[in-house]
Amino acid sequence: MNTKKTSSNAGLYGKDFLLTWEKSREDLETILTVAEDLKMLRDRNISPKCFDSGLAISQFRDNSTRTRFSFASAANLLGLAVQDLDEGKSQIAHGETVRETSAMISFLSDIIGIRDDMYLGAGNTYMREVGAALDEAFADGVLPQRPGIINLQCDIDHPTQSMADLLHLKTVFGSLENLKGKKIAMTWAYSPSYGKPLSVPQGIIGLMTRMGMQVDLAYPEGYGLIPEVVELSGKQAGESGGNFRVVNSMEEAFKDADIVYPKSWAPFHVMERRTGLLRNNDHDGLKGLEKECLANNAKYKNWECTEEKMKLTKEGKALYMHCLPADISGVSCNEGEVAATVFERYRVPLYKQAGFKPYIIAAIMLTNRFKDPAGMLQNLEQGAGKRVR
Amino acid sequence: MNTKKTSSNAGLYGKDFLLTWEKSREDLETILTVAEDLKMLRDRNISPKCFDSGLAISQFRDNSTRTRFSFASAANLLGLAVQDLDEGKSQIAHGETVRETSAMISFLSDIIGIRDDMYLGAGNTYMREVGAALDEAFADGVLPQRPGIINLQCDIDHPTQSMADLLHLKTVFGSLENLKGKKIAMTWAYSPSYGKPLSVPQGIIGLMTRMGMQVDLAYPEGYGLIPEVVELSGKQAGESGGNFRVVNSMEEAFKDADIVYPKSWAPFHVMERRTGLLRNNDHDGLKGLEKECLANNAKYKNWECTEEKMKLTKEGKALYMHCLPADISGVSCNEGEVAATVFERYRVPLYKQAGFKPYIIAAIMLTNRFKDPAGMLQNLEQGAGKRVR
Amino acid sequence: MNTKKTSSNAGLYGKDFLLTWEKSREDLETILTVAEDLKMLRDRNISPKCFDSGLAISQFRDNSTRTRFSFASAANLLGLAVQDLDEGKSQIAHGETVRETSAMISFLSDIIGIRDDMYLGAGNTYMREVGAALDEAFADGVLPQRPGIINLQCDIDHPTQSMADLLHLKTVFGSLENLKGKKIAMTWAYSPSYGKPLSVPQGIIGLMTRMGMQVDLAYPEGYGLIPEVVELSGKQAGESGGNFRVVNSMEEAFKDADIVYPKSWAPFHVMERRTGLLRNNDHDGLKGLEKECLANNAKYKNWECTEEKMKLTKEGKALYMHCLPADISGVSCNEGEVAATVFERYRVPLYKQAGFKPYIIAAIMLTNRFKDPAGMLQNLEQGAGKRVR
Repeated sequence: MNTKKTSSNAGLYGKDFLLTWEKSREDLETILTVAEDLKMLRDRNISPKCFDSGLAISQFRDNSTRTRFSFASAANLLGLAVQDLDEGKSQIAHGETVRETSAMISFLSDIIGIRDDMYLGAGNTYMREVGAALDEAFADGVLPQRPGIINLQCDIDHPTQSMADLLHLKTVFGSLENLKGKKIAMTWAYSPSYGKPLSVPQGIIGLMTRMGMQVDLAYPEGYGLIPEVVELSGKQAGESGGNFRVVNSMEEAFKDADIVYPKSWAPFHVMERRTGLLRNNDHDGLKGLEKECLANNAKYKNWECTEEKMKLTKEGKALYMHCLPADISGVSCNEGEVAATVFERYRVPLYKQAGFKPYIIAAIMLTNRFKDPAGMLQNLEQGAGKRVR
Repeated sequence: MNTKKTSSNAGLYGKDFLLTWEKSREDLETILTVAEDLKMLRDRNISPKCFDSGLAISQFRDNSTRTRFSFASAANLLGLAVQDLDEGKSQIAHGETVRETSAMISFLSDIIGIRDDMYLGAGNTYMREVGAALDEAFADGVLPQRPGIINLQCDIDHPTQSMADLLHLKTVFGSLENLKGKKIAMTWAYSPSYGKPLSVPQGIIGLMTRMGMQVDLAYPEGYGLIPEVVELSGKQAGESGGNFRVVNSMEEAFKDADIVYPKSWAPFHVMERRTGLLRNNDHDGLKGLEKECLANNAKYKNWECTEEKMKLTKEGKALYMHCLPADISGVSCNEGEVAATVFERYRVPLYKQAGFKPYIIAAIMLTNRFKDPAGMLQNLEQGAGKRVR
Repeated sequence: MNTKKTSSNAGLYGKDFLLTWEKSREDLETILTVAEDLKMLRDRNISPKCFDSGLAISQFRDNSTRTRFSFASAANLLGLAVQDLDEGKSQIAHGETVRETSAMISFLSDIIGIRDDMYLGAGNTYMREVGAALDEAFADGVLPQRPGIINLQCDIDHPTQSMADLLHLKTVFGSLENLKGKKIAMTWAYSPSYGKPLSVPQGIIGLMTRMGMQVDLAYPEGYGLIPEVVELSGKQAGESGGNFRVVNSMEEAFKDADIVYPKSWAPFHVMERRTGLLRNNDHDGLKGLEKECLANNAKYKNWECTEEKMKLTKEGKALYMHCLPADISGVSCNEGEVAATVFERYRVPLYKQAGFKPYIIAAIMLTNRFKDPAGMLQNLEQGAGKRVR
């Protein structure tokens, strides 16, 4: 077992998982080791079921394949049944308050996973609103337990993604220790679509700057992220003995990088305008904004992760990462984020990267519900119930 | 354990739960005690799982949050997996008969929960049609078991709601015995919407008149309920040593009431016209009817549960009840069923009231499938499998 | 137990179930006996749960009631949770490749069931594309297991239907041996709809010609099936000591038949044109084709399974079969595939026929995941965990 008796769980047990930077470095390490142990148990055909019954509620306010299946897999692995809160089929349209709905769905629920990444300033706020309602309902004796909330992507962070990415890096480079001093280029890349959320790049700079890494954030002028997250990343880099800079050149970011993460996003100020238009149901405004943005994007078609750019990286062999699905030039679009040959060469590690997400989510669930995850994992190992008979 | 070896189960075991007034007083008491015991087991972290596998089918022909999650929670608590019958994704549009669909979904199913409250004269009838089909299929050897049907709201009754309400009253007042002589005001209230079902007020008068209570049904002239249910309620009140009257004044109903249940509904004769229009897909007719009804409703905006009216109740402290979501003036609408201060003062008891529903549904499931619920509960307690490891 | 230690499992274990004619006769017999044993265990209230956790993914690209519930029942019976891949709620619209999605949903999945019967030349091809992606992801170490794929209906075959049909025949006639020499009439029948898939008639002739039966395929001129499947059926009939002919008369096929299977389908060449129009989103073209086809169908309204035609069969008592729902004259349509009195007389056996499908699917799942199904079934019987406590 990787999870030690001494593993910190103070910031995890009974606490929502909304932003990685609200958790201590020790807490994050605990999640990684619990995820590794859960994977090891399952790989040895030992069932890590720790619930005999219980619901894991999912609320997806945006489309999802990977995260939806990861959440379902994690819940199932631990013994929870997934119940989806589909707002279209609920009475939420009746003008019911978040406070009320949150209590109503939680009487026998252990976990609530939420994806809400459409509106800037809204997703994370909504999760906290749900959290406050659950706190209140639990304090009032309305709920027999206070379900834990897991951020499955919001406007600010995508913590189950960045944590899965970190576990991938830990696996590839051998340890978190080995990540110290490594250079990661989180860069904008061209895509023929617009309005992609900021949560992935923000999640990456907000997490990797804590690992003593050299983090370069690169984007064309005007494609900035939420300023507070950028500022925080700089501060964290300093504290962790790493480095953080913002550059306006993909090439500069790629230079000598150990890891590259080229991915499209919409500029912060565009997301702000878009949020206003979406709120006002201004379809013409949205169309106009899309047109304007695509035209602007098109100026930066050279922000593509090509073989040439890969040659700039450390020994030309940087690890290429993506949260998937990527816009692959000539495969899923004409011109996109990454050249087909680059993507194809890294396809297997990319898929392995994605494969950590179910275990990260399961680890967040487990540490949220159990005070002593190391003891629980040991019990599970010794109990040795087979997953497949 | 509250459920006694001597608890009646004759009218529950293998019998559908469609209308509370088809069940004996003893049977209803059994459901309440089983619900209390299931809650106690879960609160003590004892898993009341009595199925190793099996399906609980849900069919929602109208939107639902509370009941959907209550049904899912109940099924999961007992070990059943929920499978939703979504008519839009099924072949029912092919002109398949209810008789056939009912058999086809039931080969390995233990419970079927149905919400069908849109059409007057249709919902309860549909449930009985499903029941007859299941009887036939079981008798014919098509089905290895005859799944039990639970009415999750129809045009006539909303028995899982009224039973949860009754368990709430039992809890607040200490016992069913203590409810004798207590006055409950089931009154119409203004809402800026129309077409709300009659099943809640009907369910309340149809159940509470059996508890020896003083039941006042109040509504503006013309807002009557299904006549048969009103008549039955009067008869039941006489038999139980209680009282039942219909008044046309909210104030009169509130006077000295121990409990008030102000809630909007559409008049019976409007629901009849609406049913006809819905059946004929008469959109213009529906729009006209809505306009007419909203105009009529607007005459009764003073039918609001205000602080002033609450002062009329017993010591000004009547228990305020609602099936939720309520139309709260100034919160979920401009003018509605209840003043925000009244609602807020009773928010915690209201949420607790709602919290009984999963256990009521689980108790109906359990008593439907097990001949000796007291013995089963004892086994579960002694087996003492942990719900959370 | 019907499943013998010596039962063949070589072609089933770890192998997808896409077409019955890709499986050996012994493999098919194994599936039948495992299905019988699973049914027997459940009927004796023994839980055949062999998974403590795990996902069974379903992907329905067309509506389904029976197969959807059969798949859910089978998964639940063995201990798997169903997770539906709803393409509308996923990121597949983003241009993601089948190769990628297949890996992404499979990290913790044991079984994938797919219905894809809309496009000729597409459904089975899609399943193989998914299969190749899973093979690759497993070989690459991306997946810890290689989930098994079950064809829940494609453009070519509907193997869970035909296998359930075969188990029904085995039960009715006493043994597979007894089917030798029996005559089955798989015939086209009139329906007021068009575009019904070819997979059922193809599945029937592709399977029953292997049982030494006399298989008559009957349809009005121009209503042919995929030529390769017809050719294969003829070859198989020769090898199994049976017989296969194509006739253009319902009466001729019914003559002395032991079993009749009258069911509508669209002609192969129409399905080819329809596939092209669907691919081009040619709504006018589709409307025109529908009109033309319905007009053509209308010429063959006499292709109805009437009491008169039933009299032509062996002693007038042939077993009537249908995959359901049937177009019943005067019940689900004015003029259809079968007379109401014929359908009604065979309703109970028809429903029993449908009732085998959950067990067939469970048997396919079990033989796909376990090397020694006989040993597993024996363990389950001896373990004797109760399904219902």
